[in-house]
Amino acid sequence: MTDVLTFGETMALLTPHQVGLLRHADSLAVGIAGAESNVAIGLARLGASVRWIGRVGDDEFGRLITMTLRGEGVDVRAVVDPDGPTALMLKEQRMSRATRVVYYRAHSAGSRLSPADVDEASIASARVLHVSGITAALSASARDAVLTAVTHARAAGVLVSLDVNHRSALWDAATAAPVYRELVAASDIVFATEAEASMIVDGSDAVSLARALSGLGPSAVIVKRGSLGAVAVIDGQDHVVPPIPVTAIDSVGAGDAFAAGYLAGLCADESPEACLALAARTGAFAVTVRGDWEGAPTRDELVLLDAAPDEVAR
Amino acid sequence: MTDVLTFGETMALLTPHQVGLLRHADSLAVGIAGAESNVAIGLARLGASVRWIGRVGDDEFGRLITMTLRGEGVDVRAVVDPDGPTALMLKEQRMSRATRVVYYRAHSAGSRLSPADVDEASIASARVLHVSGITAALSASARDAVLTAVTHARAAGVLVSLDVNHRSALWDAATAAPVYRELVAASDIVFATEAEASMIVDGSDAVSLARALSGLGPSAVIVKRGSLGAVAVIDGQDHVVPPIPVTAIDSVGAGDAFAAGYLAGLCADESPEACLALAARTGAFAVTVRGDWEGAPTRDELVLLDAAPDEVAR
Amino acid sequence: MTDVLTFGETMALLTPHQVGLLRHADSLAVGIAGAESNVAIGLARLGASVRWIGRVGDDEFGRLITMTLRGEGVDVRAVVDPDGPTALMLKEQRMSRATRVVYYRAHSAGSRLSPADVDEASIASARVLHVSGITAALSASARDAVLTAVTHARAAGVLVSLDVNHRSALWDAATAAPVYRELVAASDIVFATEAEASMIVDGSDAVSLARALSGLGPSAVIVKRGSLGAVAVIDGQDHVVPPIPVTAIDSVGAGDAFAAGYLAGLCADESPEACLALAARTGAFAVTVRGDWEGAPTRDELVLLDAAPDEVAR
Amino acid sequence: MTDVLTFGETMALLTPHQVGLLRHADSLAVGIAGAESNVAIGLARLGASVRWIGRVGDDEFGRLITMTLRGEGVDVRAVVDPDGPTALMLKEQRMSRATRVVYYRAHSAGSRLSPADVDEASIASARVLHVSGITAALSASARDAVLTAVTHARAAGVLVSLDVNHRSALWDAATAAPVYRELVAASDIVFATEAEASMIVDGSDAVSLARALSGLGPSAVIVKRGSLGAVAVIDGQDHVVPPIPVTAIDSVGAGDAFAAGYLAGLCADESPEACLALAARTGAFAVTVRGDWEGAPTRDELVLLDAAPDEVAR
Amino acid sequence: MTDVLTFGETMALLTPHQVGLLRHADSLAVGIAGAESNVAIGLARLGASVRWIGRVGDDEFGRLITMTLRGEGVDVRAVVDPDGPTALMLKEQRMSRATRVVYYRAHSAGSRLSPADVDEASIASARVLHVSGITAALSASARDAVLTAVTHARAAGVLVSLDVNHRSALWDAATAAPVYRELVAASDIVFATEAEASMIVDGSDAVSLARALSGLGPSAVIVKRGSLGAVAVIDGQDHVVPPIPVTAIDSVGAGDAFAAGYLAGLCADESPEACLALAARTGAFAVTVRGDWEGAPTRDELVLLDAAPDEVAR
Amino acid sequence: MTDVLTFGETMALLTPHQVGLLRHADSLAVGIAGAESNVAIGLARLGASVRWIGRVGDDEFGRLITMTLRGEGVDVRAVVDPDGPTALMLKEQRMSRATRVVYYRAHSAGSRLSPADVDEASIASARVLHVSGITAALSASARDAVLTAVTHARAAGVLVSLDVNHRSALWDAATAAPVYRELVAASDIVFATEAEASMIVDGSDAVSLARALSGLGPSAVIVKRGSLGAVAVIDGQDHVVPPIPVTAIDSVGAGDAFAAGYLAGLCADESPEACLALAARTGAFAVTVRGDWEGAPTRDELVLLDAAPDEVAR
Repeated sequence: MTDVLTFGETMALLTPHQVGLLRHADSLAVGIAGAESNVAIGLARLGASVRWIGRVGDDEFGRLITMTLRGEGVDVRAVVDPDGPTALMLKEQRMSRATRVVYYRAHSAGSRLSPADVDEASIASARVLHVSGITAALSASARDAVLTAVTHARAAGVLVSLDVNHRSALWDAATAAPVYRELVAASDIVFATEAEASMIVDGSDAVSLARALSGLGPSAVIVKRGSLGAVAVIDGQDHVVPPIPVTAIDSVGAGDAFAAGYLAGLCADESPEACLALAARTGAFAVTVRGDWEGAPTRDELVLLDAAPDEVAR
Repeated sequence: MTDVLTFGETMALLTPHQVGLLRHADSLAVGIAGAESNVAIGLARLGASVRWIGRVGDDEFGRLITMTLRGEGVDVRAVVDPDGPTALMLKEQRMSRATRVVYYRAHSAGSRLSPADVDEASIASARVLHVSGITAALSASARDAVLTAVTHARAAGVLVSLDVNHRSALWDAATAAPVYRELVAASDIVFATEAEASMIVDGSDAVSLARALSGLGPSAVIVKRGSLGAVAVIDGQDHVVPPIPVTAIDSVGAGDAFAAGYLAGLCADESPEACLALAARTGAFAVTVRGDWEGAPTRDELVLLDAAPDEVAR
Repeated sequence: MTDVLTFGETMALLTPHQVGLLRHADSLAVGIAGAESNVAIGLARLGASVRWIGRVGDDEFGRLITMTLRGEGVDVRAVVDPDGPTALMLKEQRMSRATRVVYYRAHSAGSRLSPADVDEASIASARVLHVSGITAALSASARDAVLTAVTHARAAGVLVSLDVNHRSALWDAATAAPVYRELVAASDIVFATEAEASMIVDGSDAVSLARALSGLGPSAVIVKRGSLGAVAVIDGQDHVVPPIPVTAIDSVGAGDAFAAGYLAGLCADESPEACLALAARTGAFAVTVRGDWEGAPTRDELVLLDAAPDEVAR
Repeated sequence: MTDVLTFGETMALLTPHQVGLLRHADSLAVGIAGAESNVAIGLARLGASVRWIGRVGDDEFGRLITMTLRGEGVDVRAVVDPDGPTALMLKEQRMSRATRVVYYRAHSAGSRLSPADVDEASIASARVLHVSGITAALSASARDAVLTAVTHARAAGVLVSLDVNHRSALWDAATAAPVYRELVAASDIVFATEAEASMIVDGSDAVSLARALSGLGPSAVIVKRGSLGAVAVIDGQDHVVPPIPVTAIDSVGAGDAFAAGYLAGLCADESPEACLALAARTGAFAVTVRGDWEGAPTRDELVLLDAAPDEVAR
Repeated sequence: MTDVLTFGETMALLTPHQVGLLRHADSLAVGIAGAESNVAIGLARLGASVRWIGRVGDDEFGRLITMTLRGEGVDVRAVVDPDGPTALMLKEQRMSRATRVVYYRAHSAGSRLSPADVDEASIASARVLHVSGITAALSASARDAVLTAVTHARAAGVLVSLDVNHRSALWDAATAAPVYRELVAASDIVFATEAEASMIVDGSDAVSLARALSGLGPSAVIVKRGSLGAVAVIDGQDHVVPPIPVTAIDSVGAGDAFAAGYLAGLCADESPEACLALAARTGAFAVTVRGDWEGAPTRDELVLLDAAPDEVAR
Repeated sequence: MTDVLTFGETMALLTPHQVGLLRHADSLAVGIAGAESNVAIGLARLGASVRWIGRVGDDEFGRLITMTLRGEGVDVRAVVDPDGPTALMLKEQRMSRATRVVYYRAHSAGSRLSPADVDEASIASARVLHVSGITAALSASARDAVLTAVTHARAAGVLVSLDVNHRSALWDAATAAPVYRELVAASDIVFATEAEASMIVDGSDAVSLARALSGLGPSAVIVKRGSLGAVAVIDGQDHVVPPIPVTAIDSVGAGDAFAAGYLAGLCADESPEACLALAARTGAFAVTVRGDWEGAPTRDELVLLDAAPDEVAR
């Protein structure tokens, strides 16, 4: 029995070592990134068992992805695609305030995901299926894979978790919104930012947006507000999640860590309050380290959030 | 037709990669720096055409300077001087609060600039001649070059822009002040810090200093106040330039970026208000990236100043 | 008047810092590479004036390419293509004996070159047009660009130089051979390896291959034999070019440096023997430094080839 | 069913980036090393299924070991030992000709291996049990673990493979020899250098040593001769394994790669000749890349050994 | 005549270059650290003459320690211990707020310090003997060395300075407290944090703790309060030391720098107020640079504390 | 009593990390270099006591020099010169076969050495005074310092050792030769290359040159022949020193190491044969590590020269 099954595209991530124009970088750090695999690693560190399904190219970056995910204890089911290369993502911090991302993602292995890659048996043996809106944006076949997987999950009584994760570089809001609406309606748990929620429902603030999303079907809706915390409507009950003050070093991946925290609590049969607290603390912890997922904490490490600055354990 | 012609000494710049004593640095980053070429690059990025004239040694650092400036789209007229090496500048951030600079600049190629290097035709074909007080401090022949160039410009109806740029390591205030006064009187546009203005005129605050400098002749005087913004007197009119809040990573080069922004606006026939706003935004942007000029923005990039922290475009 | 005009695709080049699997690399060095721009830089260093035409993406890698080429003194005419990204090339030295290359080149800006990009006036004002078989392999429009440019050159009495440069990753031999044959027939100067020559003509050894290529039309044919030197047939005369013994550090780019040396001699009106010697020495020099073009010598530096190992000039 | 089961101590490996005294190193590269896990990775790359059992400390180096081995596709059974830290190994290349190794290994987790860690069921489900003399040298309990495992294997009809791997820093020859003799007698396959073989049996050359070891019981004995190749006695038949000429970059780990090659052939039911050839080629390939195991090849990659130097596949 | 004699264990210090898990670090920076040698370097930079006594292993890390301390102008008396390796310390900044330290310190050379290593003549020729509670925690023989040295000092009329420096990783509070009490009673000058003071005496706040410690005998007691400053009782007089506001980059070593400042003032015969001010400024300065001691200032450099942020001296 | 006293100019040494043009280097490694201090370090490592006298600037590079030499156990007597900066040396390996050196040495502190800096008492208390021709080339006052020191040494019965060390970048052969002749005549031990010997005396080969130099007065003359070994005439006896075969990584500093080996043997009262062997082995060892002096061996380490390639001690 797997706690969480997730699937999507994971890319090689290349980033300059310093703030500034990419063209001035002498060298690029090499890593991997992908919203769903970020969640998978976050869950594994918090003690959940998790399987990730995806396609990678028959190339070194593909092997980097499977090597890294396996090293993190994720059960990897990777189709090696001879016809599409592993996608690349270049992340440039142009200035202290703005990060820019460029993709080499067209015709990539990961975007060639199709319903056949996500086997029904894997879905049926999981407690939670976690999907994101990014996969739905990659290609028609990838969108089919998401919708088919969700259908299988519902049929098998497996909880469906959705992180909307809108990417304007992949599709525009008008195309995306109806797909998001369909996915929200078929989900049990939904994570969205205020901006994303506004693409799907109307609402004047985070709480009203959460309630409106909740009205579409999901038993749990969490609307994230960045450094302002989050609000949630779970089983009809409103929740306010206060922010955890930290020195943010890299806010990319915060949402994935948040989702991982929530789902880890759920798989440990914790209360909604405990799930939300774990989500908030995991998300806050993750932004204190550079990288989309590298900073993800174990449960033991979360106590460091309560340390005074620069406290040394020795 | 060139928008801006500038000339001066550009040096190889060596900097440790981390805060602390230079003697503990394992290696030094290699780059270039020079107030006038910083302005030239800033202008080129903002879309202006710009020519830089200077002398470099017949050595790799000299070739680094021409390679870098050409790469940035500056029209380089570099005299290769067989008799003087390219100057070096060592920039050590001794602690989080203080940067120390050491020059290997004596008898350098750049300091051997003379009136013959700055040809009248180049000056006559530009809209603006931009000079700085640093060049006047380098040597007698370099000072002559500045004064002669200014004379040529005035004769040809070319606007003269001056950044006072006092360097106490090169000359003392008593020697410098009369030269500054002469240059201000011959300039159309003057950039100075409050401290520099106080070396030249009397005044109780930035506004009164700007007015006093204005009284010496220039139609536009801008007195810079660092993180407090700037004030200006342009065509007899007072202007207050509010600061742009940013997370400063390296404040060296802010003044050069500011001047580049102002002159770029001028060459695009923008209003004084627009020139000052462009100056302020360019200066603010530049300090968000390490390096004297590496962070200089294009006009398109300036919008990033308005982004929320760590916003990712993807 | 430009000595040499060349055009083609230049890519961002990413390479691990050490021998071994790419997936074990912590970071990748960033540079640029492209057969024709390698030749352009080689020529510029040897004192020739050279123009490079190409398409780059509207991205940082595109700006890196124009920045680097301009910095090297090449006259760059780059079309910024909003619809295709700058291509990437990953170069992994898998082991001490074998280098592997992967391209992210599909639908790239550079591959979208078309006849319209290579203007007749540029061609007519050059002494030599240099093209390579790589460009012909990129796309139909790029192939058209090569053929059209060659036609223009012949019409204008401009010498045509061709480096066959077969890339099996871009097209197969059967498709390529007739194109090569057509290009050879239209060229004045042809560079080919023994393997490439064998794709076009029959011959039992380098000399007979050179003669056979020569029979197709070109007045000068050079068949390169790697560390064994080269043979040439120039104006009906056979030449043997002995190898220059060096410690090779990176043999990629040797052929481009060789071509640059030959064409630089030609543009300086040197004898065939002198052109071949300059080609051989430039090629040998280039492999002593890591990088596709970074090691290219000036004429002054070629004397270092005659130094005893590790001789220090001081 | 696992092809090969192996166990032992794996350490964090710290190495300066350059040749020279460790005290002059600014920083140390971080990796892992261990004879048995090197063999495990080598086998996994060659397509065999392999399980590694070991103890690691409850610390980041312990987690680095499990992360790395899992990333390489090895089935890891690691006991996290709260009472012993993960061992460290410092590898300094003092000069171009000599490498020096220092251990922080006393009381380490890995040296606390005991018979209880190596479960009988794991052994019984493998085709081959591979052990090394290093484990026998670590501690009394680790030696017991080796002897017990060998006994279990023989009882279950599992092949026993032994690499003598004498480490003079861990024990002296006099203490080690009787243990080696006991292990050889209980093994089916034995790998030894000439020096190691001489500690156990008498013999005037590699062949006579192999025959003498063979006389102690093993059906296959391979005596390795470094760059001179190897000799073997398999099922009473003599074999000479010629060396594969390569440019060695780091010879550490060659023996482990050799053993992995041999066992991979065995598990693929190949002939003795094929096993020996695979061993020799795998060992030769591995030394062309820095690192104890990082250069280990897949079967597909072995063809690169036949490439001409610096041949580029593109 | 030496101003200050100190002794203890100095370790090789390995630290990742970035915030995050040690297992994700590609490489580790190499340095040295030890509370007493940190104080020694701090004193040397402030102009005092200082001798450090310790044991190091017969290994490169031991030679790194003596090389570094000698390079800093400390008079090093290091016993090279053939039977114990030099200890290691790994310092991981797990997140922006928390640093974790791991020791490889068991049976180390440094922990084998004994009374015989600290010669009576050295003590008698110093003005101040400085010891720390860490040495007392290392081993029975090291504790004897501390107690014996203190006895010798008192007999010779040499001032005894003690920094309590409790390390919970080395011993527990219950074991340590009586030793601290004995040492405080035998000391003239005592440095302690509030937490440390509370282990030894009762007190409701820093002042009452300082008074209580003072009551045990020392003529000068300083209780440090981190970023809140410090309080002191010197010759029965209360002192409040206000904090110096700085941007802290690495707070480790602040206490050692503080002690060095105080003792440097004392050896220069300055008033208690001046000693405390020098202590506070030296401690504040030290935290602005990464490293346990690398940022320690000279007296001349202290003026930089009064500079405006990023002020450039040129 | 000091074994060897030496003096001269030591510079900060900046070197790119890779072969190739300096202008392509992203960063420069920082170290120190100076012929006489190289010899001093070499001697200290071989167990001799040695004092180095020199002038350094009042800057971080000056402090780097004293820090490094003290760290190596050299007794440093450095005058801090407020009026001259520490000299810089840039060492570029332009290609695998040729190194180029550039100095920033004009008006440097080190070149301002004068007779007053080299005190008679220091000279009188040494067994050997070692000088080099470089110091004589730096300036008139430095030349005076050399001549005066030699005079003092002779008067005090201290042996005079001279390494000719001609630097064509500092003076031409015609100017230098008479100075060398004067110094040789006043020396007891002379080291010279064949080229240097030919500047001073006539001779058809190394042996005849050595004899001719010997005829000028020195009791020991060693003529070095690089990778061909050396010849010597000592007390009228000819000696041939065969070369030690090694893989040279950086041949700069070989001569200094050779001299250190010879003088170390002399100070240990070894025979001429033993002194020459120690010189040859020390010189050979030093070239196996990058750096002018970093590879210098201890006596214990010399045995590594006899190791088989890549032999690992563990």
